[in-house]
Amino acid sequence: MSDTATHVTLRRRPHGMASADDFEVVSVQMPTPGDGELLVRTRFLSLDPYMRGRMSDGPSYATPVAIGSPMVGAIVGDVIASRAPSVPVGTVVTTSGGWRSHVIVPASAVRIVDPAVAPISTALGVLGMPGQTAWYGLNRIGHPKAGETVVVAAATGAVGSVVGQLARLAGCHVVGIAGSDEKCAHAVHDLGFDACLNHRAHDANSLRDALRQACPRGIDVYFENVGGAVLAAVLPNLNVGARIPLCGLISRYNGEDQTPLNLGPLLANRVTLQGFIISDHPEAFPPFIAEVAPLVQSGQLRYREDIVDGLENAPTAFLRLFRGENFGKLVVRVG
Amino acid sequence: MSDTATHVTLRRRPHGMASADDFEVVSVQMPTPGDGELLVRTRFLSLDPYMRGRMSDGPSYATPVAIGSPMVGAIVGDVIASRAPSVPVGTVVTTSGGWRSHVIVPASAVRIVDPAVAPISTALGVLGMPGQTAWYGLNRIGHPKAGETVVVAAATGAVGSVVGQLARLAGCHVVGIAGSDEKCAHAVHDLGFDACLNHRAHDANSLRDALRQACPRGIDVYFENVGGAVLAAVLPNLNVGARIPLCGLISRYNGEDQTPLNLGPLLANRVTLQGFIISDHPEAFPPFIAEVAPLVQSGQLRYREDIVDGLENAPTAFLRLFRGENFGKLVVRVG
Repeated sequence: MSDTATHVTLRRRPHGMASADDFEVVSVQMPTPGDGELLVRTRFLSLDPYMRGRMSDGPSYATPVAIGSPMVGAIVGDVIASRAPSVPVGTVVTTSGGWRSHVIVPASAVRIVDPAVAPISTALGVLGMPGQTAWYGLNRIGHPKAGETVVVAAATGAVGSVVGQLARLAGCHVVGIAGSDEKCAHAVHDLGFDACLNHRAHDANSLRDALRQACPRGIDVYFENVGGAVLAAVLPNLNVGARIPLCGLISRYNGEDQTPLNLGPLLANRVTLQGFIISDHPEAFPPFIAEVAPLVQSGQLRYREDIVDGLENAPTAFLRLFRGENFGKLVVRVG
Repeated sequence: MSDTATHVTLRRRPHGMASADDFEVVSVQMPTPGDGELLVRTRFLSLDPYMRGRMSDGPSYATPVAIGSPMVGAIVGDVIASRAPSVPVGTVVTTSGGWRSHVIVPASAVRIVDPAVAPISTALGVLGMPGQTAWYGLNRIGHPKAGETVVVAAATGAVGSVVGQLARLAGCHVVGIAGSDEKCAHAVHDLGFDACLNHRAHDANSLRDALRQACPRGIDVYFENVGGAVLAAVLPNLNVGARIPLCGLISRYNGEDQTPLNLGPLLANRVTLQGFIISDHPEAFPPFIAEVAPLVQSGQLRYREDIVDGLENAPTAFLRLFRGENFGKLVVRVG
């Protein structure tokens, strides 16, 4: 075993758009597990938009990362040393390991991953937090009914792709919004969306009109993870009684979006908008996995990964999320 | 009986702030009821913010008033001619009569008012649509629990005054926002609010800070009927899991308010915001009246009316709503 581990730490807090210089790649001494602990070697690190929030120290629902500390994040990896009999060496686990090549965690803080179900990286995507976010928001807040229309932005992303496919399986008319013609083609041809709009080909008014055409019966559920101009185009197309699960606002994470918002359509159309954070709902993980894992195994629910090699490349890869340059769930394959 | 009736009609659609010139007072021939119909002489006409929406022909949840037609509105009055045996002459009824001194309505379209319960004008306020709006939004959407903090704007208005008193009876810490020191004194001393802030004595930042002081445990329910700067001051003070029943946006009804809104706090605090229109919920009227009428009769729930004499004065009285010049439920005593 190497005697050093690699961390990617937060070097400074960004103002506005984050940059690669906000991170630092450092070598540290290889840690050893104490009683009840595991040493996990990371195989995949998840990169997710919420991490931008942890880089800032403004008000948030979670504690910011301290300057000089490793960035937070979910990993999947191998147990390479164990002082907990319940999780032997060789077990594949997922945990909040952070941007680290190796991490010590209590055995109670890991979830065991079965490599027979699907490639282990899916524990960070379709069968992990993003998939659970999609499943929970769509079903527990969106309450889609067969024949209704569901719109989801970031349609080929880790969350949006699951939202759209689950909505289609529920018998809904599903319209995606994505950032390129290539992504839209994937949403329609590979994921089975009924339609997909490339928001970069539209201004606010024409996106509103294109949504009206793509959603001839109006919008019943808008799964919100973007905010800004896309939301503004959706609002006038909402049906009476529409539901908006709100799990992210990527257009705002770097502070640049100040689009004014008119609540009038939420009143006129009796809309319910509900913010949620999936980490509040660990009890929803078992029913999520019971429903979605078989769909992944059978191929009814497809997923796409955007895999970047090398932990040292995590910072530049992470920044692609905010330019919409990832295509599928963004993960880093670690050493 | 006079052989003419008086109507107040919509003369033209306002752009921006409405004015008295948008209305016209006209005399028409006294109508006579057909089979199954009643002739009702109006005693009180309700004036409510939602009527501003009916003056415009933009997208709305309700059909606009046609140019030259009487303005819509709830009335309470006496049946002075009847061709429906179930509702004899002399009955006091409430109905959607419009801004009219006399109106023909089918007997099926009235609700009988019992003058023994409370003064009949309360059928337009605390025991009518505004009271039901308060009761429904607070209980069915706000779900206040004893010990929680409830904030309501337009605190001495027809809706807000009922929201605050019901919340207080539910054991909540209740903070009002109103537009004068006199209104705030009424909210605290007569209606039993724990505190009330005069928003005209604050800018956005100081209102936010004053709310923080008045709500030391944060805000669990914000009953929204105003929008704009008040909402902006409330958002950073919301607790995790807060609920926002949204029944009105008076700051926007005349089109002048374009305050940008950041949805971030709704996500970070997992807030549920739900728009509702009370006319969707007629089934909620009986439980509302069963709970609230005894509270009014016993004096546990107080109400204040702002009574203007003369149907011809309805236009100028109506406009006072948007300047916050009414003090209590605004009604017109007719003829």
